[in-house]
Amino acid sequence: MPQGLAKKQTPLDVPLHSDVHAQFGRFVASPQTTGADIIWHEGADCAALRQRLMHQYPATLWLTGLSGAGKSTIAFALEKILLERGHSCFVLDGDNLRHHLNSDLGFLAADRRENLRRAAEVAHLMNEAGLITIVALISPFANDRAMARQIVNTQRFIEVHVSTSTELCESRDTKGLYARARKGEISEFTGISSPYEKPVAPEIEINTELCSIEAAAQTLHAYLLANNFIKSNR
Amino acid sequence: MPQGLAKKQTPLDVPLHSDVHAQFGRFVASPQTTGADIIWHEGADCAALRQRLMHQYPATLWLTGLSGAGKSTIAFALEKILLERGHSCFVLDGDNLRHHLNSDLGFLAADRRENLRRAAEVAHLMNEAGLITIVALISPFANDRAMARQIVNTQRFIEVHVSTSTELCESRDTKGLYARARKGEISEFTGISSPYEKPVAPEIEINTELCSIEAAAQTLHAYLLANNFIKSNR
Repeated sequence: MPQGLAKKQTPLDVPLHSDVHAQFGRFVASPQTTGADIIWHEGADCAALRQRLMHQYPATLWLTGLSGAGKSTIAFALEKILLERGHSCFVLDGDNLRHHLNSDLGFLAADRRENLRRAAEVAHLMNEAGLITIVALISPFANDRAMARQIVNTQRFIEVHVSTSTELCESRDTKGLYARARKGEISEFTGISSPYEKPVAPEIEINTELCSIEAAAQTLHAYLLANNFIKSNR
Repeated sequence: MPQGLAKKQTPLDVPLHSDVHAQFGRFVASPQTTGADIIWHEGADCAALRQRLMHQYPATLWLTGLSGAGKSTIAFALEKILLERGHSCFVLDGDNLRHHLNSDLGFLAADRRENLRRAAEVAHLMNEAGLITIVALISPFANDRAMARQIVNTQRFIEVHVSTSTELCESRDTKGLYARARKGEISEFTGISSPYEKPVAPEIEINTELCSIEAAAQTLHAYLLANNFIKSNR
């Protein structure tokens, strides 16, 4: 988690219309030294420049749910909708991250938590860069998701529970992982041999048993519009 | 490092003018499983959409040099120039990363290498998202910089040696770190008690003894223009 930094909200000079999310800012900290002789470097405050350039307020949509629930598919569908409408965005997919940034991590509890921490830190960096970030990560534990919310910035964090049931995910079993988990070939498999703690108050819940992937992505797009992260005239 | 992925270059449909950098693409991989049961998810190929949206080709400027050489200051000056001209970009500053993404890492050799690896992976992700990324990191070892070049993508990697001499950096000693290193309070301090391996063939060399910070940033901006990463009419 961010540490040693005094966080300060700086209102942007081009605010969108009245909205709980209207007052954003960039984490700004005074130059200071940590115990490790690290100085915090601060550039010119570019948040306003970025906002004018990108015509949007950065946010992180954090899609949580079981393996096979549809998180990645929804994430990429939303990415396409946003890009086609001129909004800069990026998908951080949990599986893809494990090929690159998190390729050194395994699946024990500490590694899973570190996997999630890094995803949240990168989402935060991408938000600072002005992007809308879409994270698709099982993230089964409430504590870990609360950590992600803090790292990203509470005002920018949109928790999306992709609540497809274990039964349906297992019946789909697109990756064949449920079958292997049932055989005991994969340990600590979420929904089978490891718990999934359902979000108590997610900003959005999507059940792909009740709607199509396209409809799910449209729901997320509509949320961004309704909350003034993006405007409709693009 | 990226592993298990077959890289394929996909030409963009809106190429800039003739240039060695004109043929870019997004790393694309066929769905496959690694030993850890990780599936590679691929979204709609959004590289062309991003290029049209952002009017630029992503690149990573990797500023290497001694502590106090001027890397961060040049990086933030360049960021401002680019943003004012409508180019989406972001500075990944080594010290700042250590407050967040890399806050779990120390200063032993393995940790320094991991620090650099993660910076390169994030630069790669930001490039994939369409951003021009500016990394300011001492990165004293040639092997590590070669790793960064591979992770980022050779065609997008611009090594910038900020070659201010040890003598001048030490005489500036803006952070007071050289004095402490001389007293032995900081071990393995680059330039004093740990070597700095000068880049043999960096794309750009900048010596802040010979030019101002503003001129240094303008040089990098001119390089991006000359190599068609960005256009001048913005």
